[in-house]
This record gives sequence, structure tokens and C-alpha cells, in this order.
Amino acid sequence: MFLRHIKAHRSLGRCLIGRNNHDLTIAELNRELESVFGEPPSLDGLSSSAPQVSDCASPISSCSEERASLTHVDSTGHAKMVDVSSKQESKRVAVASCRVLLGPKVFNLVASNQIAKGDVLTVAKIAGINGAKQTGNLIPLCHNIGLTHVRVDLTLNEKDHSVEIEGEAATTGKTGVEMEAMTAVTIAGLTIYDMCKAASKEICMTDIRLELKTGGKSGYWSRTK
Amino acid sequence: MFLRHIKAHRSLGRCLIGRNNHDLTIAELNRELESVFGEPPSLDGLSSSAPQVSDCASPISSCSEERASLTHVDSTGHAKMVDVSSKQESKRVAVASCRVLLGPKVFNLVASNQIAKGDVLTVAKIAGINGAKQTGNLIPLCHNIGLTHVRVDLTLNEKDHSVEIEGEAATTGKTGVEMEAMTAVTIAGLTIYDMCKAASKEICMTDIRLELKTGGKSGYWSRTK
Amino acid sequence: MFLRHIKAHRSLGRCLIGRNNHDLTIAELNRELESVFGEPPSLDGLSSSAPQVSDCASPISSCSEERASLTHVDSTGHAKMVDVSSKQESKRVAVASCRVLLGPKVFNLVASNQIAKGDVLTVAKIAGINGAKQTGNLIPLCHNIGLTHVRVDLTLNEKDHSVEIEGEAATTGKTGVEMEAMTAVTIAGLTIYDMCKAASKEICMTDIRLELKTGGKSGYWSRTK
Amino acid sequence: MFLRHIKAHRSLGRCLIGRNNHDLTIAELNRELESVFGEPPSLDGLSSSAPQVSDCASPISSCSEERASLTHVDSTGHAKMVDVSSKQESKRVAVASCRVLLGPKVFNLVASNQIAKGDVLTVAKIAGINGAKQTGNLIPLCHNIGLTHVRVDLTLNEKDHSVEIEGEAATTGKTGVEMEAMTAVTIAGLTIYDMCKAASKEICMTDIRLELKTGGKSGYWSRTK
Amino acid sequence: MFLRHIKAHRSLGRCLIGRNNHDLTIAELNRELESVFGEPPSLDGLSSSAPQVSDCASPISSCSEERASLTHVDSTGHAKMVDVSSKQESKRVAVASCRVLLGPKVFNLVASNQIAKGDVLTVAKIAGINGAKQTGNLIPLCHNIGLTHVRVDLTLNEKDHSVEIEGEAATTGKTGVEMEAMTAVTIAGLTIYDMCKAASKEICMTDIRLELKTGGKSGYWSRTK
Amino acid sequence: MFLRHIKAHRSLGRCLIGRNNHDLTIAELNRELESVFGEPPSLDGLSSSAPQVSDCASPISSCSEERASLTHVDSTGHAKMVDVSSKQESKRVAVASCRVLLGPKVFNLVASNQIAKGDVLTVAKIAGINGAKQTGNLIPLCHNIGLTHVRVDLTLNEKDHSVEIEGEAATTGKTGVEMEAMTAVTIAGLTIYDMCKAASKEICMTDIRLELKTGGKSGYWSRTK
Repeated sequence: MFLRHIKAHRSLGRCLIGRNNHDLTIAELNRELESVFGEPPSLDGLSSSAPQVSDCASPISSCSEERASLTHVDSTGHAKMVDVSSKQESKRVAVASCRVLLGPKVFNLVASNQIAKGDVLTVAKIAGINGAKQTGNLIPLCHNIGLTHVRVDLTLNEKDHSVEIEGEAATTGKTGVEMEAMTAVTIAGLTIYDMCKAASKEICMTDIRLELKTGGKSGYWSRTK
Repeated sequence: MFLRHIKAHRSLGRCLIGRNNHDLTIAELNRELESVFGEPPSLDGLSSSAPQVSDCASPISSCSEERASLTHVDSTGHAKMVDVSSKQESKRVAVASCRVLLGPKVFNLVASNQIAKGDVLTVAKIAGINGAKQTGNLIPLCHNIGLTHVRVDLTLNEKDHSVEIEGEAATTGKTGVEMEAMTAVTIAGLTIYDMCKAASKEICMTDIRLELKTGGKSGYWSRTK
Repeated sequence: MFLRHIKAHRSLGRCLIGRNNHDLTIAELNRELESVFGEPPSLDGLSSSAPQVSDCASPISSCSEERASLTHVDSTGHAKMVDVSSKQESKRVAVASCRVLLGPKVFNLVASNQIAKGDVLTVAKIAGINGAKQTGNLIPLCHNIGLTHVRVDLTLNEKDHSVEIEGEAATTGKTGVEMEAMTAVTIAGLTIYDMCKAASKEICMTDIRLELKTGGKSGYWSRTK
Repeated sequence: MFLRHIKAHRSLGRCLIGRNNHDLTIAELNRELESVFGEPPSLDGLSSSAPQVSDCASPISSCSEERASLTHVDSTGHAKMVDVSSKQESKRVAVASCRVLLGPKVFNLVASNQIAKGDVLTVAKIAGINGAKQTGNLIPLCHNIGLTHVRVDLTLNEKDHSVEIEGEAATTGKTGVEMEAMTAVTIAGLTIYDMCKAASKEICMTDIRLELKTGGKSGYWSRTK
Repeated sequence: MFLRHIKAHRSLGRCLIGRNNHDLTIAELNRELESVFGEPPSLDGLSSSAPQVSDCASPISSCSEERASLTHVDSTGHAKMVDVSSKQESKRVAVASCRVLLGPKVFNLVASNQIAKGDVLTVAKIAGINGAKQTGNLIPLCHNIGLTHVRVDLTLNEKDHSVEIEGEAATTGKTGVEMEAMTAVTIAGLTIYDMCKAASKEICMTDIRLELKTGGKSGYWSRTK
Repeated sequence: MFLRHIKAHRSLGRCLIGRNNHDLTIAELNRELESVFGEPPSLDGLSSSAPQVSDCASPISSCSEERASLTHVDSTGHAKMVDVSSKQESKRVAVASCRVLLGPKVFNLVASNQIAKGDVLTVAKIAGINGAKQTGNLIPLCHNIGLTHVRVDLTLNEKDHSVEIEGEAATTGKTGVEMEAMTAVTIAGLTIYDMCKAASKEICMTDIRLELKTGGKSGYWSRTK
């Protein structure tokens, strides 16, 4: 199957490592993979004469490394769940964010509700916390883990008539909680949409992304500003 | 409680109807509310001397109309589920979309996988279809309904290194399926994120929005381009 | 098996119909069973010489009627789900209630929270609405149905330092929604308990009961005051 | 926001600590809060000149302590999940109970079934055990944890024609299992109701309460008889 | 893509229609497809000169028919859910069966339990009924529908030391309930395995299959004996 | 109740230990029970004069041992969940298998799809992985545990026109994952059935069984070939 992959790469006229500004160096890539697997990756699908992962210049190795970087597929491209049995238990935290663009009319409605009773944002907060707990049921290759903490905060931004959502998840286990944080803010955002859609169908959720994570082998990471 | 609302409006220096480009006319607002409730809205919280919904100029009526437009809260701002018992059964369809910005490196990984096996996008499609079916369990004030159809399509966009997701839901029942379509594309997007996050934490989901809906009292609506 | 049942009755020295003030007449019992099955019940397990359901005096018939009155078990006592395929679709509503006895200290805490933000009761309301939607997943012999409306209201009662919860469920289908209303108020009550348990473990949920139901063959019923 | 709370307290004419028989002393309150948080609580919302938690006499500190005693809301009254990341893992057990008042007619039906086959109580037992495992999905601010044991026992009480339900949950983790035990007996009780409601709508669930708990920082507690 | 499919067929040396004893005639195939789609299938992927579905002899048409017969994939082989929006509502019933081979030792244990209390089979029955209701959550391309009836019966077969399970599901809707019946017997069988596995790990579930179905466009079907 | 059990055994004319080829020796039985309970079993239900578990010849002791071997029922035959609170945490793995007999026509359809896109098997794989995570929600007396790994592989067997499914689950906890592996392959098999049923209702799932398990007190076990 590796020959097919090479042919596919060539036909697109792309070289997977070394062409763009944001490419990883091989060293960074190795650290990335090691953080997930707990050990350096093997080079499945390469012929024995293929250069090792430390050699950046070879299209063969770059293709396999790039393919190996998708940890939820194996070397033949088939979906698989990462085996975390041998990883260390540690405290892991992740924070994600989401923005819901309401437009001025709906923003004013939500702001009025916030002063009066606040249920629009409270319902969304509760839905987000519950959503985090459902992550393993929703995302197929996510492990089902226990969470030690979930936090969802929603604030109104008058400048762009939006709701800014921040979600945090924590566990003391073998795998990170990025998906739990992402799911929390996403479900909270969907709930805002549900609460407001009768007033405007133009509402848009945007900028759903990871802000930071701690713990595990790769340690601290935060989004470049 | 209405007096508190008026005071709150004034303190923000806003007039809720008539100030902005995107405000609804009273006629549009009435149609909007009628489509949800199945009957014209009452004017809870207004004194008997307040003008009726047909009078656009009054800040009192505009406040109550605006408050009433959030169908998932009652006139005191408390969360409530809309009662659809008396609505007609009809075929209802909704289409939503979502974009996942991968960046060039991860985009190439997914594109390679798509040629080789395609599991990254297939897993996301399956997760999205399942997600639509979970909508009533995830969104607190959503009704739990049976769906007659769910479709999730994912395509790679080379220009901006993104995955474009389109989701469609259909039912023949008493309530629209906007949330089911929104949830489908969102869960699919989260799954793409999960499949790719080991390669890049910078991935961002964006532009989650309704594209069109049909059926029910308000009939056809599609997003202005 | 019927003989075993008779022997069991005798050994307890009980006669199942005719001993107490609240016993049904045979006519009432027939109506009760017919409302569930959609047709008069057969007399499984009785010998052919046993009197029919219309004969009130016989201990044999009373035993079979009493056994038949448990619609979720068959004549041999085995659990079964009621077949509602042939029942008419109609609007069905049920209202249930629940009281959570907090004691004065915790009551004051909740009352203060209600003035400040109100999240204790809002979270319970949301949990109750979600709980109604989960009824078919929780109660083994309940049908999984779509609900057209769920309402959960919570009020503070200063006199006995309690939270009074009322829940209403509605559907337009083939089976009543008593369990959905009961589950709604129960989950809301459990959530109050969860929110308050750190302040007092003595909190008690009580008086969980059906208040009224409408629709279906048996029509309107409300609790005798 | 703290000033609003004081004003709210005064307007009701209540002093939250010191008025009733069952108030906690400050020492007891500190132990209570420490058992939940794993560390003494901070005094959010108080001005810097406010007395510390160890000072019982101040209405300000008493208000903040009382508000802080609701661990599932923060100092502004907003809902939040308790962060248990730093708590010790230990074996935790909780036992709860529930009574279902059947009335003599239905009691006899269930007793007959119990002799014949026993499915009414068995189905309720199974539903209760499953219900415990669903607690994190049902109660918004509950953590989703793994249980090492769940037990649900049901016995018939001839004297008051009731079913007495006792449920026990256990885990070896960072948080107690009171809600799991409470949910187990509650779902079991709802199932009894479901199994019997065709025979009588007057059935009532009552006295749902915690009987005892062990483990964690607060150790052993049992209900005062 | 069609050319790739033809080439793949040839390379395997297979002709997909006309080679084996159990092949469908074109007429039967059309009826099969029509029962699912509610209308005759189109011939996606074929060149315009390809014969129509009524022409049995062409390998091209046979390939398209065969590919179209998998209703849960489209003409390019991608997974899709069948759209049942336009199908008629009718009563649909399905019956499935499953055998659990216990071996003599475990069979005797279960038989003893059946005489004493019967909980092994009762727990499996309850799990099977609940499993049917979970079908839409478990099988990705299954629609989430309401069931009007579920029945699971388990009997002991002394001759081959097995438990024979029969499950029936019914609905009055737009799509059949074969999967609900299959899931019911399967989950019941898994539960028997769970109840008995400490006594023997050699237990085997077998012969899980559909026995009959009624309703819908294809009407009555029962397994050839 | 023990006397009734003895009578039941005699009336069937069976001796529960010592008659068949596959009976356990007492030593093996003790090891089996100890692996589940973490300690040697007590002899509930036996009169004080009954011989101990080490005495194989007595029908009384054999009956109690046999009854005790069903770990999910107590000595009175009532269902119960095994208490694993005191068991050691260790890595536990289980592998199960399942075969889906498609028949030649459907096998060719699936094989063609596998070459073209592969979604039939991919969807089944995803469903199987998700199914493993749902085990605690589906099997009443199963503990709800976190899994560190789930693997589902599906291969086509041309000889008997079947899909062979292998599933593996792993955890580092207090209880084995046999049910998770069994549920994984079963749900995957059901999904194959769902994807193919429009082409043939004769499809049959068979040979669902445990292949091996490791970890825990009983250590390694693999199926005798």
C-alpha cells in the first residue's frame, strides 16, 4: 500500500514535509508522536531501506511520518483508537473556547434576559457541562473517562454582539481532556443557538478551538496569540 | 418585573427595535412568533395601556416583543420548552454547515488518508449522523423526535486547507430539525478535530450555521448570501 | 400455575377483592384494564369453570382479575411490556409533583441563592426536563416516545422549608405520559438534593405522586384531595 | 454583588446564622466545607475588611459562609461543579432508602406476584442498579464515576402496604456516591410505580433519603433516628 | 469510479449475478430495492449506454444492481442512511432469535436458578427489552424510532444445554424493526453470557437471525426452514 | 430455600458435579470463585453439617458450589452485582470474536464495496468500538468502567462467505473486560447485518465467543481449540 501512497502524493504534486512555513521539524514530529504513543513510532509501510524518522529529506520517510502523525489511523489508513494502557496517570487539564455571533437584535434579547433572570446562559452552561461528560459517547475514538472537574463560563461581548464561551475539563488519568473541553464549549454554543433561533436563524458559532492544555508527556501547550 | 426590564434597557442606552439595520419590522416579528407558537403571541408583562404588537414605535411594546422572541424563556425570563402539541405534522428539513480549518500540514495528512482509505472523513460522517440522533439528549429544551433522514457530507477544500461539512436532517413531525442538522455538523467537526489533534492543536472549527430549512408554518428560509 | 396462586392467596389468609374500602368494583376494574389493553382482558390461567370477569363474588375470578391488573406482568407473573400498537393516537398530558424537605438552614441558603441568581432551582428544572426525555431509557417496560412538551416548575415553601416541584409532560401518541411526568419531578428533586447535600445530609424527598392525567381511553383522572 | 446579597437578606428580615435550632457552628461549617473542597474555603465576595471564617458573630461572614455552603454554586450564586482533582482516592460507600406506598389492593397484587414469580420487584431492582450507573448523565453537576458495587434490595411491608427499597453504591475514587445511592432507590421506586400504575394511580413514593455514608474526608455519617 | 468497480470484479474472477444458486432475479431485486426506497432505484454510476435494471445479462447492470442492493451505501460506496420520509406509516413487526450454548454444567446452574428464583433469565429479558430501545443509539445508520411493543422470551433447551431467545419488536411507523428485534435478542444473549461467565468462559452465542417480519412495502417474509 | 434446590436437582435426575466430561474439580472451582470474589466463597444456604467446599462428593456441597458459581445471583437466586471494591487494579485484556454469514451474493456486494470504498466494514468497526464503551449501559450487572483501548478488526472470508470480526478491549482497573470485547464484536456484527439486510434477510450472526483474557487473579485463559 505504501507505493500507492507515494503515487498519490506525486500526483498531487506535493511534498508533505519541508514546503510550508508551519511544518514541523523531524525532532518536533518525533516528540509529538512520542507524547501520544509513549514511545517513538515505528515506520510501518516503509521498505527496509527507507531512512529513519530522523532523516527529514526523504519523501518516503516524510510520507510515513506524516501518515503516522494521524494517531487515530494506522499505517494503512484504517481508523483505530489509541492504546493508552501504559501511559502514566497524571492531572490533565484542557481549556477551549467558542464564540456565538448573535447580531445586535438577538444580543440585546439575551442581555435583557441576563439582567432579568439569566436563564439563557445558565441553560447553556448546564448543557455544556453535561456535554463534556458525554464526550466518550459522541466521539468514536475517544476513550470514556471520568472527569474530576468541568467548568463552562459564558460572557456577553457588547462589541461584536457575541457570547464568548470558555470551557475547562480536568481529569487525573491516562489521557488528555482536550475533546471534553472542546465538546463542552460546543454543546454550550449549540444551546445558545437553540435558545435564540426563533429570533434569528443567522446566528453563527465560530472559533471553536483549544486554548491550552497541561499534563501528560507533552506537558504545557497554549495557543500562539 | 417589566419595570425592571425597562430600567435595564434604559441603563444600557439601547432601544431594542428601530435602531439597527437588521431589525425586524413588527409584521416580520409577528410571523416569526406565530411560526413557533402556532398563534399570535400575547403581550405578557405589559400594562393594559401598552400598544399592541402592531405598533412598532413604542419602547414598551418593543421590549415585550423582544423578550417574547426568545421562545425558550417565558415572560419572566425563566427557561421553558416550547409546547408543540398543537402544531401540524409536516415534512421538515434543515441543512447546516461547518468548516474545520486544518492548516496545510494537517490538510495534507487528511488528504493522503482520503486517497488511501478515507477513514478520517468516514469516522467523522458516522459520528455526525449519530450526533443528530442524540440532539434531544444534548440540548436541554430540544424535543426528542424521530428522524426520517440524516445526511453528513465532508469535502476537502484545498484553497483554505479546510474540511467543509454539510449536514441535513429530516422528519415528518411537529417541530423543525434545525438543531439536529447543527448538531450533526458540529459533532462531525469535533471528530475531525479528535482525529487530527495529535498533529496540530491549532485546528479550529468555524462558521457553524444554518443554511436552509423547509416545512412548518414559516416555510422555506435560506441564508442570505 | 393458577392453582399455585390460589394456594398462595389462601396461605396468606387474604381475599383479594372485597376486604377493603378502596377495592374496585368489577366494572371499574374492567374499564381500567380496557383502557390499557384497548380491549377487554382475557382470563389467562383460570380453569374453564371459573366465573368471568363480570362476576365479582368469586375468589377465583378476583384472583385472576387482581393478577391481570398488573399490566406489566403476564398471567404467569413474568414481566412484559404492554403492546400499544393498536391504541389510538391522542393528546395525552400528565402532571406529577414532588416535595423536597430542606430544613430551615438549607432552605435559607436556597432562598438566598434564588434572590441572587437562582441557579439552584434552574439547574434542577433543566435536569427535570432532561429526565423526562430519558424515561424510556430508565424505566425498563416504558415505551420510548417523543414528547411534545415538558414543564418543570419549582417554588419555595417557607412554611415547611421545602421546595415544591410540579412537572408536566405531553405527547400526541399511543400511550400516556405519567412516567415522564413522574421522572421529571424526581430527577429535579434529586438535583436539588445534589446541589444542597454538602450543607445537610438530612434532606428528604417525599410525596412523589401523580396529580392528574388526561387523554387516552380512561380520559381524565385527578388525585382525590 | 455581596452588597445585593446583604440587602436581600435584610429585606427578608432573616439572619442566616444564629436564628434557628439547627444552625451549624462555624467550626462545624468549616469542617463541612473542608470535606468537600479538600482545603478551607476562601471568602469570595467579601470585602477585605470582612472577618474570617473563624469569626461566628459577623452577619457578613455568616452570609458568605452560608452561601459558600452550597458547594454547587459559587459566591455569585452561579452553578458550578466541585473540582475534586486534588482529593484522595478512598473507598466510599453510601446507602439510601425509599418507600413506595401502594395501598392494600396493589400491595396484595405485588405480594401475589412475588410468590408466583417475583418479576415486579426484580425489574425494579434491575432498573435501580442501572439507574445508579446513569447518575452522572442525569444529575448535571455530578461527576461521571465508575462504581465498584451497586446493590438494590426491595422488601414488602405488610403493615403499611409499602415496598421498602434500600440501595447501596460503592467506589474507590475521589468523590462520594450519595447521589448514586439516591438515584438507585429512586429509579427502582419509579419502576414499581410503572409496574403498578394501571391498578392504581394513587401510589406515592416517599421518604427518599440518605441513610449513611462512609469514606472521604468527612468519614462516617449516619442519619439520626 | 464505475470502471474501477468493473476492474475489481474481473480481477477477482467473479460475476456478481448469475453464477450461484441463490442469486436474485432482476424482478426480485427490483422489488427488494423498491421496498426500501419506495421507488425503483436509479442507475448511478453507469454510463448512459448501460442496460436498465430489467436487463439481467449485462455485467455492468449486474454490478450496479449489486452495488445498489447495499442500501446503506451510495453508488460510490460511501455510507448513507436511507431516507424514509416519504414512506407510508404502517404496523411493522419483526421477530428474531438467538441461541446461547451453555454446556451441561452451566445449563444445570441456570436451570436450578430458574426453579428457585429465575433471575438469570429475567435479567436477560429486561436487558433485551432495554436493548431494543437503544438500537438507534447503537447502530449508526438505523433511524431512532418509537416502539409500540417489545417482547423477549427465553426458554431452556435441555437437549443441547442452551438458552433459546426469541425477541419481537413492533412499531407503527415508516421503517421496519428488524434491527430492534435483532438487538433485543443479542443484548439478552450477552446478558446470559455475563451472568454465567464466571462458571464457564466457553459459552457461545450463536444463530442470531431474523425469523420473520411483516408490514411495509415488502410485506410478509419468514425464514425458509 | 436450600431444600427446594436439592429437590429440584433430584427431580431432574442430575448430579451437578461429577457426571460430565467438562465438570470442574473442586480445586478448579475454588480458584474460579476466588478470582471473582477476591476471597474463597462462603457456603450460603447450607446447613451447618454440610461438608466444606473442599469435599467434592456431597450433593449438598456440590449444589451450593454450583449455585455459588453463578456470581451474579446470591444464594437465594436473586440477581446481584459483584462487589469489586477490594480487587487489585491491574491491566486486563480480553479478545472476542464473531462471524457473520452473508451468503455468496451479499458477500460479493460487501467485497465490492471493500475494494471501492470500504465503508460497510468501517461503519461496523466504528459501531463496535462505540458499543464497547456502552457495555455498562447495556448489561445490567456490568460495572461501568473506563477503557484504555478498544480494537475491532473485520476481515472477509471467501471460503464461507463470511465476515470475521475480532474485538479487543483493555483497561487498568478492578474488573475484567470480557463483556466489553463481547459487546464490541456483537454490535459490529449487528451493524454488518443492518448494512446488508436489504440484500438478504437470511444473514446470520454466529459463534460469538471469548477467545482469550489476561489479567486479574485468574490470569491468562484462552479458548481450547
